[in-house]
Amino acid sequence: MIYLTKKIEFEAAHRISNYPGTCSEIHGHTYYLEVTVSGKVDWNTDMVLDFKILKSIIQTGVIDHFDHALILKRNSENEKIFSSYPGKIAWMESEPTAEQMLLWIVSSISPLLPDEISLAKLKLHETSGSCASWKDNKR
Amino acid sequence: MIYLTKKIEFEAAHRISNYPGTCSEIHGHTYYLEVTVSGKVDWNTDMVLDFKILKSIIQTGVIDHFDHALILKRNSENEKIFSSYPGKIAWMESEPTAEQMLLWIVSSISPLLPDEISLAKLKLHETSGSCASWKDNKR
Amino acid sequence: MIYLTKKIEFEAAHRISNYPGTCSEIHGHTYYLEVTVSGKVDWNTDMVLDFKILKSIIQTGVIDHFDHALILKRNSENEKIFSSYPGKIAWMESEPTAEQMLLWIVSSISPLLPDEISLAKLKLHETSGSCASWKDNKR
Repeated sequence: MIYLTKKIEFEAAHRISNYPGTCSEIHGHTYYLEVTVSGKVDWNTDMVLDFKILKSIIQTGVIDHFDHALILKRNSENEKIFSSYPGKIAWMESEPTAEQMLLWIVSSISPLLPDEISLAKLKLHETSGSCASWKDNKR
Repeated sequence: MIYLTKKIEFEAAHRISNYPGTCSEIHGHTYYLEVTVSGKVDWNTDMVLDFKILKSIIQTGVIDHFDHALILKRNSENEKIFSSYPGKIAWMESEPTAEQMLLWIVSSISPLLPDEISLAKLKLHETSGSCASWKDNKR
Repeated sequence: MIYLTKKIEFEAAHRISNYPGTCSEIHGHTYYLEVTVSGKVDWNTDMVLDFKILKSIIQTGVIDHFDHALILKRNSENEKIFSSYPGKIAWMESEPTAEQMLLWIVSSISPLLPDEISLAKLKLHETSGSCASWKDNKR
């Protein structure tokens, strides 16, 4: 099986509102995302998928949504605090931990992939030393 | 199971002759290759395989062939264009996409490994943001 | 399945006493260790495990033991050579190859993890180009 990985960065702010420590403060990360898909080599193009198509899927499914956004759990506390904030907010149903952002990205990217291409793995680095990853359990 | 990975770079030029875009121009990459093998720890040496042996296998099986070469599909168009080119050409039966180069490298490295060592994974980076990988389906 | 990876460095010296080459000399590495655990997302914290807890487990299970130590196989040759050495020595039952250090780290970290968290993968880089890794065979 052949896998293709596209790596891309985005900058965002977040706060973990229920965290008993400084992560409840607004802070940010240069998120570094690795998206891995799998599929068969197309013998017409000698490619599994054009890297440019994969990049544009990540742009639509992830970057347009999260880049330079403030990522927040939609709860009454956050809705009150940021009620006058005019900037871009990416609301989530959960706290914006790397784990939950990964699961969000799985749901967002999967339907954008061509039929013959599967999402195999995602890796989301919050810092150079900390990352969360997701793997398709079926393989 | 223990895995050993050796990472190595080589510089090469290629063109994807059937690509509808700039990748049909001659261009090049600093290819960054990760070769992962698996095996049992030898209790005499406390190693699976000496990293130096793995490096020399990659040198013979990959670097000697591709480094500072122009990698091309052997088709009539390329044979005509480069008929007067005196430099090193690595001809392939397919377009020299990362996907097909990976499959070529699998065939080239596998027979060079010692009996008790298996090729487990290959990762070939064309750029810092784009890589193709291959995994042994049997594990 | 969600995986969390924490990456951490430590500096140590070692010698491979039975190696027929310069690795039998005392030398050192900036070891770069990646520890990957897996588990389910806790819907109270929206995390699998706080990265800070994982970091502190690695500190206790690996860094406190190996950092700025001289790592040696406990054999009569080494015991004689270093009998007057007053510094920190991390003795091992095997030669301190990356392979055997990995297996040592598996045994050291596993019992420190919370019940619902499993050790999934370890990657130990001796240099930027050479690393050994271990994967849980059960998954």
